[in-house]
Amino acid sequence: MPTNQKLRTERLAAGHNSEDLPHLKHVGRRERRAAETRLRLFRCAIQLFSERGFPNVTVEDITEAADVGKGTFFNYFESKDHVLGVLAEIQLGKVQEAVAEAEAAKRSIESVLQQVFLKVAEEPGGSPRMARALISAFVSSERSTDIMAENMAKGRRLITRAIEIGQKRKEIDPRLKKERVALQLQQTFLGTLLMWSLTGEPKLQDMVESSFQLFWRSIAVRD
Amino acid sequence: MPTNQKLRTERLAAGHNSEDLPHLKHVGRRERRAAETRLRLFRCAIQLFSERGFPNVTVEDITEAADVGKGTFFNYFESKDHVLGVLAEIQLGKVQEAVAEAEAAKRSIESVLQQVFLKVAEEPGGSPRMARALISAFVSSERSTDIMAENMAKGRRLITRAIEIGQKRKEIDPRLKKERVALQLQQTFLGTLLMWSLTGEPKLQDMVESSFQLFWRSIAVRD
Repeated sequence: MPTNQKLRTERLAAGHNSEDLPHLKHVGRRERRAAETRLRLFRCAIQLFSERGFPNVTVEDITEAADVGKGTFFNYFESKDHVLGVLAEIQLGKVQEAVAEAEAAKRSIESVLQQVFLKVAEEPGGSPRMARALISAFVSSERSTDIMAENMAKGRRLITRAIEIGQKRKEIDPRLKKERVALQLQQTFLGTLLMWSLTGEPKLQDMVESSFQLFWRSIAVRD
Repeated sequence: MPTNQKLRTERLAAGHNSEDLPHLKHVGRRERRAAETRLRLFRCAIQLFSERGFPNVTVEDITEAADVGKGTFFNYFESKDHVLGVLAEIQLGKVQEAVAEAEAAKRSIESVLQQVFLKVAEEPGGSPRMARALISAFVSSERSTDIMAENMAKGRRLITRAIEIGQKRKEIDPRLKKERVALQLQQTFLGTLLMWSLTGEPKLQDMVESSFQLFWRSIAVRD
């Protein structure tokens, strides 16, 4: 699947449609349909994972829920595990946007990173059950673990750039190793999500926000 | 199961035997046997979870691996999920010891908390696969999620006491809400464990140590 189509999938998944995004107006109907089908398969799949648990969902269950033929599934995904890659794409798209904002220097790095935390929480934060299903899916097969590890590494490289910018601008302590800070940011996010998924209390957005604030104290330049 | 028997289970699980622990010499053979059987069932269970995945392991698989009758299992555990409670007990025992050390004021709170991080990593840190199996097991049924949530809350109450001591001793910033700091400590640990479980690189003990060091910067009193 070409990269520009992936990008469209992310934007669609982020709640935009082609009307919001002028550059999508020039995209052919067939390509747009393909992106929509792929996203529909993803949405149906994660809904089923959350209801029945990842191991108990078959490709047939997904295609039935999405109302497409079984063959259609394999036009978009190599396997059930690969559906999880869509989530990774959506999340990476958000991180990428944030890093672009950091580079554009319109907002403080603190606000850019806090925004990433909140935005990345949207997708798995639909319900605690959904969050648990996604976490469980990512750790329940070698293949999906590899997909998550690879995408976490990509995300980390992007965040490392934002951290570097923050260090140059004297927002973030320049003595800290930027890769380590990026790793800690991801770990703090994952830990918050996992903890929230156990009870669903308090609201994920609130938990994520206060986790970020405390995390920021560990890396901010001290007055 | 009486609390003193639980305590013994923890100590045995931590790699001690009754020879190391003089107070266990006075424990009857039957009680000691019971604690050993319970621990053996736990060890066999988590080994099987790690090999086959939590949902694919039956009580019969566990009793067969532990070489006991199926009925014996239910003398110790209500269900397969309850086996995970043993892990929670082991971990809580470690946190409890640390808080006792904090109260005894022999070491700095920083060193006490760092030690907890390292000790709690021992059990799930056998292999990345084992860590993934345990995380997956804890989020894959309502019952095991409840067990984890309950024990996390217990652990958090213990850690909150240690944080409070740290604030009184002016090691930890007294303006921070102690419960929030305890929650962040747990989240940082869980996130580190989850991230490590994806690749197993670098060594968990190293990852946990540098995660703790960065975390500590967020709560330490500033000079």
